[in-house]
Amino acid sequence: MLLTILKSEILERQRKFISQFGQRKADCAILFSVTDIFYLTNFHFHPTERPIGFFVDPSHKTHLFVPALEHEHAEEFAVVDHVHSYPEYPGLRHPMEYLKDALVEAGFSGKTVGFDANGYGSSMGYRGPAVSDFLEAEFVSLKGLVEELRFIKSPAEIELIKESCRWGNLAHRLLQKYSKAGLSEIEITSKASTEATMAMIETLGKDYRPHGRTAYAIFRGQIGEMSAFPHAVTQNLILKKGDTLVTGAAADVWGYHSELERTMFVQEASKEQEKYFHIMYDAQEAAFAAIKPGEPCSVVEQAVQRFWKETGVEHLVQHHTGHAIGLLGHEAPFFDLGDQTIMQPGMVFTVEPGIYVRGLGGFRHSDTVLVTENGMEMLTYYPRDFASMICY
Amino acid sequence: MLLTILKSEILERQRKFISQFGQRKADCAILFSVTDIFYLTNFHFHPTERPIGFFVDPSHKTHLFVPALEHEHAEEFAVVDHVHSYPEYPGLRHPMEYLKDALVEAGFSGKTVGFDANGYGSSMGYRGPAVSDFLEAEFVSLKGLVEELRFIKSPAEIELIKESCRWGNLAHRLLQKYSKAGLSEIEITSKASTEATMAMIETLGKDYRPHGRTAYAIFRGQIGEMSAFPHAVTQNLILKKGDTLVTGAAADVWGYHSELERTMFVQEASKEQEKYFHIMYDAQEAAFAAIKPGEPCSVVEQAVQRFWKETGVEHLVQHHTGHAIGLLGHEAPFFDLGDQTIMQPGMVFTVEPGIYVRGLGGFRHSDTVLVTENGMEMLTYYPRDFASMICY
Repeated sequence: MLLTILKSEILERQRKFISQFGQRKADCAILFSVTDIFYLTNFHFHPTERPIGFFVDPSHKTHLFVPALEHEHAEEFAVVDHVHSYPEYPGLRHPMEYLKDALVEAGFSGKTVGFDANGYGSSMGYRGPAVSDFLEAEFVSLKGLVEELRFIKSPAEIELIKESCRWGNLAHRLLQKYSKAGLSEIEITSKASTEATMAMIETLGKDYRPHGRTAYAIFRGQIGEMSAFPHAVTQNLILKKGDTLVTGAAADVWGYHSELERTMFVQEASKEQEKYFHIMYDAQEAAFAAIKPGEPCSVVEQAVQRFWKETGVEHLVQHHTGHAIGLLGHEAPFFDLGDQTIMQPGMVFTVEPGIYVRGLGGFRHSDTVLVTENGMEMLTYYPRDFASMICY
Repeated sequence: MLLTILKSEILERQRKFISQFGQRKADCAILFSVTDIFYLTNFHFHPTERPIGFFVDPSHKTHLFVPALEHEHAEEFAVVDHVHSYPEYPGLRHPMEYLKDALVEAGFSGKTVGFDANGYGSSMGYRGPAVSDFLEAEFVSLKGLVEELRFIKSPAEIELIKESCRWGNLAHRLLQKYSKAGLSEIEITSKASTEATMAMIETLGKDYRPHGRTAYAIFRGQIGEMSAFPHAVTQNLILKKGDTLVTGAAADVWGYHSELERTMFVQEASKEQEKYFHIMYDAQEAAFAAIKPGEPCSVVEQAVQRFWKETGVEHLVQHHTGHAIGLLGHEAPFFDLGDQTIMQPGMVFTVEPGIYVRGLGGFRHSDTVLVTENGMEMLTYYPRDFASMICY
């Protein structure tokens, strides 16, 4: 099983990046975003106080700049021509002084330099100068450029997202199986997550690298009345008969995410719960029907809002219909009124219109879908219908 | 049990912040950092595409700016005078237009405005204008100001960190108990983490709010030869007799972190493993001895580097001795040569000098310590000695 992005695809991404920054009149470029650096180099990094950077010099050679701690890891995994490193932060000499030397040696002086940010940024205690403080050059912002390259997923990326959906499905199946009145949130989610993770890892074998979370299933405290808060924090509630549950399950596969969320009921649902469930279900259907390549993302939100108004529940709505997903759990573009990005085949979105009824619960399914030549394809495949959502 | 920061302490933090930005000649201020906003308001937020902000107006009233999704949550938990919200991002009107209205109404026009960043920043698909693009005012950077207020922990903060250490200790005890040859990394860590979490939650009761991870114990793939890589990624290795293990365990308590890491051995250790263990142990002792209020942080790293050189192992070192810890897992200041911050009573640090021997393993304990009037106090209390580190 090929659970990776091939070097040839990484190099193709770099070629597109070089072409794009060239169109913005940059001779060379430097990036600090760890997600974009992973996308362009296959080098995965957990940001702490230690800065990293990726740069492409005027002759289009690629360079990675990392702390010494990561040098060997970078030499092994990063698809770049050169790896540079600095001893430590905050050492006697600031990492940006080493970066300056590397950039000057690579021919950045006096050139037009594209960057995603004017220096490294991290909340974890890092401080340092802006690139424009230490490099004599012209600068042009490339903010958002790599994010836009990431909008359309390749066949290999789609396979990784499908693999994520597969293990999310197992974790969710186990979550539903173990959701019984009298059991606590943490008991249920721990059992489901651990079993799904063990099955995943033993199935995929040693080449599986999670780059994030292994298979998991969660409630986030969205149990009973608390499910009416769309992003409740886990509090280890005990499930009761008749509770509305809003769940989530997925697994990170080679850095790629998916999203599967379901509205479920413990043993039984009242007529009122059933009513709101069907409204939510139909809203999701309205969203699916509106997903078409060539149309702006906003049409999906418009279709859902039209449905909410027709049904008279617009006062129960608290968030937009969905977001793109890939290397990050939430990515642009969005299914929202203000997003005019044109949907294109290869884009992957969550579809998750929700309504929240105080005292009763939240009603939200989330599915991960792929925009195709003709419409869309569901990547998640867990049952969605009311009858399947009762936990016995 | 009081597992919280009182409103009076939040208000005192705000008073200090207001005094500090006043000293920097700002009339009012706006912050976008979610960690600093939590510190100053008790409002906890998981950043996605939706921006938030905290501002103090020229009459020193405090304001929180959140998406509608969070309005009620903010009204309930945030210690501020006013909560403002916008419908959604990216809605028809950009959140920064709502923010502009709120800032103008609060009297920011024409004033000197302090900010931590010139606009909200998030990797998760957010785009928007800089504050200086939409507000007519003078601007002064407050970057790092709140981080510095966070350097010295209050007695209440220290209690929360101690509570974190307590549950990390349990998780680590269970990890050691379950670490046996033939078992897999994920089986062991899942069992230890789940049991410790259940015990923690059932002990602390319903007022416990994790704001992060509940009790956990991990290996991060640092098992056997792989433990020689200081930040290996979990790969579900199977433990073997004689393996070196480098562990980690903690729990987030009301947003506060601690760090407990141990070098352990499966059933037995060779003479060579024992030799490197003792060198690491003595290096940590050298660090403890160097921690004194009134001295710069760099003296701790100097003491450790002197010890490494005397022992002839400086080529096995890959990182500095430690970092501050609190609302973030890594915070400034650092035990590193370039950090001249003066140690003061109330600062909390990790102490974790490490050496990494290819083919044999990594050797690193990490303890969380408090700087006191006379030296330091250990907050973690798990055994550190060689004999206690064998997993039977």
